[in-house]
Amino acid sequence: MGYNAFLERMGEVNDLLNAESILKWDARTMMPPGGADTRAKQLATLTVLARDHLVADETRRLLERAEAETASLPADGVERTICAQVREAIEYHLRIPAALVHKRAEVGSIGQHIWAKARADSDFGSFAPVLEETITLNREMAECIGYEEHPYDALMYRFEPGETVRSLQPLFAALREGLLPLLKAIGEKEPPPVGFLERPFPVASQLEFALKMARKLGYDTDRGRLDLTVHPFEVSFTRNDVRITTRVNDEWMPKSLFGTLHETGHALYEQYCDPAYTRTPLATDLIGLYAVGGVSFGAHESQSRLFENHVGRSREFWELNYGELRGTFPEQLEGIDTETFWRAVNRVQPGLIRVESDELTYDFHVMLRVEIEAALIDGSLSVPDLPEAWNAKVEEYLGLEVPNDRLGVLQDVHWSSGQVGTFCNYTIGNVMAGQLFAAATKDDRVRNGLANADYLPLREWMTEHIHRHGRRYSRDQLLEMATGRTLDPTDYLEHLTRKYSDIYGI
Amino acid sequence: MGYNAFLERMGEVNDLLNAESILKWDARTMMPPGGADTRAKQLATLTVLARDHLVADETRRLLERAEAETASLPADGVERTICAQVREAIEYHLRIPAALVHKRAEVGSIGQHIWAKARADSDFGSFAPVLEETITLNREMAECIGYEEHPYDALMYRFEPGETVRSLQPLFAALREGLLPLLKAIGEKEPPPVGFLERPFPVASQLEFALKMARKLGYDTDRGRLDLTVHPFEVSFTRNDVRITTRVNDEWMPKSLFGTLHETGHALYEQYCDPAYTRTPLATDLIGLYAVGGVSFGAHESQSRLFENHVGRSREFWELNYGELRGTFPEQLEGIDTETFWRAVNRVQPGLIRVESDELTYDFHVMLRVEIEAALIDGSLSVPDLPEAWNAKVEEYLGLEVPNDRLGVLQDVHWSSGQVGTFCNYTIGNVMAGQLFAAATKDDRVRNGLANADYLPLREWMTEHIHRHGRRYSRDQLLEMATGRTLDPTDYLEHLTRKYSDIYGI
Repeated sequence: MGYNAFLERMGEVNDLLNAESILKWDARTMMPPGGADTRAKQLATLTVLARDHLVADETRRLLERAEAETASLPADGVERTICAQVREAIEYHLRIPAALVHKRAEVGSIGQHIWAKARADSDFGSFAPVLEETITLNREMAECIGYEEHPYDALMYRFEPGETVRSLQPLFAALREGLLPLLKAIGEKEPPPVGFLERPFPVASQLEFALKMARKLGYDTDRGRLDLTVHPFEVSFTRNDVRITTRVNDEWMPKSLFGTLHETGHALYEQYCDPAYTRTPLATDLIGLYAVGGVSFGAHESQSRLFENHVGRSREFWELNYGELRGTFPEQLEGIDTETFWRAVNRVQPGLIRVESDELTYDFHVMLRVEIEAALIDGSLSVPDLPEAWNAKVEEYLGLEVPNDRLGVLQDVHWSSGQVGTFCNYTIGNVMAGQLFAAATKDDRVRNGLANADYLPLREWMTEHIHRHGRRYSRDQLLEMATGRTLDPTDYLEHLTRKYSDIYGI
Repeated sequence: MGYNAFLERMGEVNDLLNAESILKWDARTMMPPGGADTRAKQLATLTVLARDHLVADETRRLLERAEAETASLPADGVERTICAQVREAIEYHLRIPAALVHKRAEVGSIGQHIWAKARADSDFGSFAPVLEETITLNREMAECIGYEEHPYDALMYRFEPGETVRSLQPLFAALREGLLPLLKAIGEKEPPPVGFLERPFPVASQLEFALKMARKLGYDTDRGRLDLTVHPFEVSFTRNDVRITTRVNDEWMPKSLFGTLHETGHALYEQYCDPAYTRTPLATDLIGLYAVGGVSFGAHESQSRLFENHVGRSREFWELNYGELRGTFPEQLEGIDTETFWRAVNRVQPGLIRVESDELTYDFHVMLRVEIEAALIDGSLSVPDLPEAWNAKVEEYLGLEVPNDRLGVLQDVHWSSGQVGTFCNYTIGNVMAGQLFAAATKDDRVRNGLANADYLPLREWMTEHIHRHGRRYSRDQLLEMATGRTLDPTDYLEHLTRKYSDIYGI
């Protein structure tokens, strides 16, 4: 009875956060331009009210009763897990003064305008003051949240709980050691031809084919839809309504196709969460104040990268599905065989822009950002020295010279909106995807499915081991249960080495 | 300072109610079917929180400070009007116990499912028990709200403040007296041919033409958009984002065209509200808990009916715009001249279904509903006797026999969702539209504009006299300022008599 009233209260927090997500989806897909200013106010109000509803006296009273009522249940059962998570989230938010949250949101809102202009003008100097303020505010935030070793750990906690500057060091070292020689070897080989991918592929057919593939992977359109947007994303409003978006470039076909498979991976995580967790904290990120079923940003990214790269960019996938693609685009793909197509969509080419990077170079973009963010936060790097530090790392990791700040340090939106601490998720997602795919394909049903264009067994394996658990277990608990190990880059490195040796004949 | 903090608090209430409206728009235009259950919960939470935020101690504290601070300002100025409206709304909501609000929402939610099935089966008996409960709950609500003469007055207050059973009697009598003879005379004449309107008009072109006309009337698509839905509506999320919807029937072209002009009239009311009122109580219905700038449902309907009927169904409009319509649909409109088209879209035909009724018979559908609702609420009519009473009134007002309850007493959704007291708005809107259009066309600029397909002067007249004021003045204050009189059916009856005598040669 008390526990149920507590759950209903948490359902209201989930409702508020889902409402906020719906407003964000609408703003990025449907909203007419005039709506931007008042929409920003509506979003700000929902965030504040969700936070206030969570930390309110009434919630704490209900939590205490629920804790008392469930005290004799197993500590790792659903009820006590939920109570513990809510208590932790309340304490987390109460450590951060409302004025700091407000100030950070304000600077983030102003920052985005300043950044957009600075990026267009490639003028780091005009963005530097607001970035300085953002870094200061994030340092204050880190002090409020608390940490053991490094202030950056406190900032990563919201996105990737448990990950620290120290824990990332051996992971990044292993990736550098495994990937730099591979990248060097590839650079000496003839790249596969990709010119045919720049032919004009009609937009409507691209969307139709991409959605067909998404459905094939398990995306349920009775509980979702695909729309166009500028910066693609996936968003859920409970598992019953999980939407994906894409961006279509009629001169670079892989963008919408693999982008859709990527968002599909995210969507499957949400659509196949245990229905019993709907509207509960096990489907609500109460730290980040975001209605989501995935347990960490990295875990979420593991699903998008798995379906995009391990499935969607595999030779096997195209051996089975290329006929359909060529049937859809007979003129554009005339004379292009499966092997040529598969090699083309896996071409490696170190570039300056993170969001355009390929499977193999992506992690270097991540590493340089994490290292730079940590240094900005601990003060070992100052904002005025940032462009130089950025350019040096791009040279070191990617062998490229950065011609201007627009293509360098000004390229990402994150800092302009006040966000620091989220980049490591992308690499953790990659590593987890490798580890999970290796484990899943030890299962005969999964392997046979993949060999016959039947993706249900793979989706079911992921649902059984990942999706259904929502936020009940930590990322490393999930990994241990699913693969017998915590985060480990071995499978991922093996996958990349095998695949790219094959493509490039190394 | 205190007043500003109070306004910001009211801005949050407006944000919450706008968020609710966005969720409703999405549910009716974009949401995949699976999302319905959790969306209903999200909407319920937002309603409760908006109400709680309004009546909270903190709001009352801020209101008291704002009242003290503005006590020396003019009583009819913006500041004190806002304070008075908020105080009234808080008192209104505090009179209604939360348990009653909750119970009514619950019965409304169950009621809609039961009604949908009952209507499909034309089985009034299965809907009767939940209707009985709805009537009882609305009676309780009326007792809580309070009234002077008739409990139904308390229920109408939310939609049409100031209107009462007694005030409607002379209005309805005048309409009956003016319209029944006209209707009888029309029944003796040859109806204009309408068969060509049933030809297939391509959906995309219908939408494009309708939106073009909406823009011509002043609808700003930088602050709005047109989408498809099942039951068309207009909804605003502040004046900066005002959306309209339509339903396209490819076998009855007038539906989407005049439906769009109708929603355009609603949209203009919201889009041209004074920008200074954005997020304030002057753009928020704090009694009905709905983010809307219009001062009453009837006043809102006056704008939709004015642009749909007085502009869109006028001979002058089609003399100027029919060429463009025929250019869009040359095959479908082959051999049809302006006069034939204009007469066809104004054909009078008494029918059983309110939402399909023409300009002349609509008010009879309204009157019978208002009379029946009032009788149900005061107990002079019992639910078991309802179908018989309904059928007798349809016979009396429209001269039609009701073959079954599906086409009779079960046709409207309102009661199933718990709503009683909203029907009079439609007729008040018609009457007001007549009165406002007559006043506006005394202005040379407006008349010259209409004669030259320039609808800006008319829109500006309405903005000057109606739109911009938001909820600052009562409906009758607005009418007096704009036309020199409170609600008066003379102009409306004159309009109908003149127009239909012309069309039918009476």
